[in-house]
Amino acid sequence: MELYQTYLAAVEDCLDRLFRTDAPYRQLQEAMRYSLLAGGKRIRPVLTLAFCALAGGDWQRALPLGCALELVHTYSLIHDDLPCMDNDELRRGKATNHVVYGVTLATLAGDALQPEAFGMIAQAEGLTAEQRIEAVTVLARAAGADGMVAGQVLDLLGSCSDLAAVERLHRLKTGAMIVGAAELGCVAGGAGPALRAAAVDYARHLGLAFQIQDDLLDVTADTQTLGKPVGSDRREGKTTFVDLLGEDGCRRTVADHTAAAQAAIAPFPGNMFLSRLAGQLAGRKR
Amino acid sequence: MELYQTYLAAVEDCLDRLFRTDAPYRQLQEAMRYSLLAGGKRIRPVLTLAFCALAGGDWQRALPLGCALELVHTYSLIHDDLPCMDNDELRRGKATNHVVYGVTLATLAGDALQPEAFGMIAQAEGLTAEQRIEAVTVLARAAGADGMVAGQVLDLLGSCSDLAAVERLHRLKTGAMIVGAAELGCVAGGAGPALRAAAVDYARHLGLAFQIQDDLLDVTADTQTLGKPVGSDRREGKTTFVDLLGEDGCRRTVADHTAAAQAAIAPFPGNMFLSRLAGQLAGRKR
Repeated sequence: MELYQTYLAAVEDCLDRLFRTDAPYRQLQEAMRYSLLAGGKRIRPVLTLAFCALAGGDWQRALPLGCALELVHTYSLIHDDLPCMDNDELRRGKATNHVVYGVTLATLAGDALQPEAFGMIAQAEGLTAEQRIEAVTVLARAAGADGMVAGQVLDLLGSCSDLAAVERLHRLKTGAMIVGAAELGCVAGGAGPALRAAAVDYARHLGLAFQIQDDLLDVTADTQTLGKPVGSDRREGKTTFVDLLGEDGCRRTVADHTAAAQAAIAPFPGNMFLSRLAGQLAGRKR
Repeated sequence: MELYQTYLAAVEDCLDRLFRTDAPYRQLQEAMRYSLLAGGKRIRPVLTLAFCALAGGDWQRALPLGCALELVHTYSLIHDDLPCMDNDELRRGKATNHVVYGVTLATLAGDALQPEAFGMIAQAEGLTAEQRIEAVTVLARAAGADGMVAGQVLDLLGSCSDLAAVERLHRLKTGAMIVGAAELGCVAGGAGPALRAAAVDYARHLGLAFQIQDDLLDVTADTQTLGKPVGSDRREGKTTFVDLLGEDGCRRTVADHTAAAQAAIAPFPGNMFLSRLAGQLAGRKR
């Protein structure tokens, strides 16, 4: 997908310009950049750009919003890997932040990424003050105490063992930010209420498909392909979608959510990129 | 100071309305409220309200901005007390957040307070979108990688042993947020550039006076008055202002910074509250 590569390159370039100052606290900037530039699919900012384009806006204007959300996503990965959370040493085939920089600096790097993200939205060029304020609201809701962090609490401290509870957990933990990414694109592109609602619907289904596929890969892929130890969710005693639906059930449910995501945006001309993206994520191997 | 009590009551009331939802992740809300409502002098939001009033604005409009900054301040205290940071078990005479709720939940409570703060600014009533965007910018700068977190990095990982380095550390670690609080008041009150510059100047001097007084109390007060173990900075091997200036030198420097803070706002009618506040903080016993 050529357009994906265009979006991806713009996102990487935007992120690579950040935190380059040669300050006495340079190690903080290094730690932030280490995780921020560790690659990854950049699905969230790509969604932001794509929904801005689908709304008829110039996708480049959505770049600071998508990258701001990616900053928050990155902080969440750094903190999620900490010893007091999932205690993971490997992510995307690289040592996790606290393994390289220590727990203190990793915690602080995550802490600093959050205000930087909101500052980036506030400074976004080419958007009105009203658009920027709405973007702050969207990101705050996605990342806050009724969004991603609530999902983290349920994941780490809750006892989610039935399908409804596990779905709710993932709607919050990963879904809220994926929905937020799509909404940010709508804000930047000036989408009307119908497209905004469709974007939320698309992102909800995409988020669940993504997570179920993640659980499936956790038991079917090998460590080298995945870039992290396989079976890690199982070892931690968490109930996964594979436990609840079985492998075949997971494949069917991923297909159902992918079709529902595609149906949500079907009425909007120019939906091909987002429709194909949903299909490709459903078939991904890592 | 009757006005201080009025401001304080409004701040406490505003904070007490937050995070009351009865969600399945209720423990998160409890942990957030535990630290948010642990008392304290609320100097930062009081500065926000007072500078709004000094600018001729209705101080009640500044309340969400001052409280948002207090949310960020609270997250910073929760994380600062963590075992991977200062590892403190007592703050303001109460067990610290991670002692009560565990390290995982304490980390997450701090994480959630940040987006909630920015969301609060975005929703602030009675302010224009431009004012709210400027407030987001001010808070992001104060709390971010070139502000408070940079100070944390220098404090925990740097080797600050001369006066210039220790001053820079505190200008970042505590000063940036105190300056930010004063600036938020200016934003809410629609202050012109002269008052804005004076507010920054006042807050910089106040912040240093406050920190030097803090170091002084750390060696001269008793645990019960202070609400935390005395001499804790010394035990951790950090260079304090007392090490660098001696007790008498600290008292003189506090007086100098207090006078400079008062001089900065002297030209502005209605400065009496802020002038007296600086004097009272300089003479505080805890």
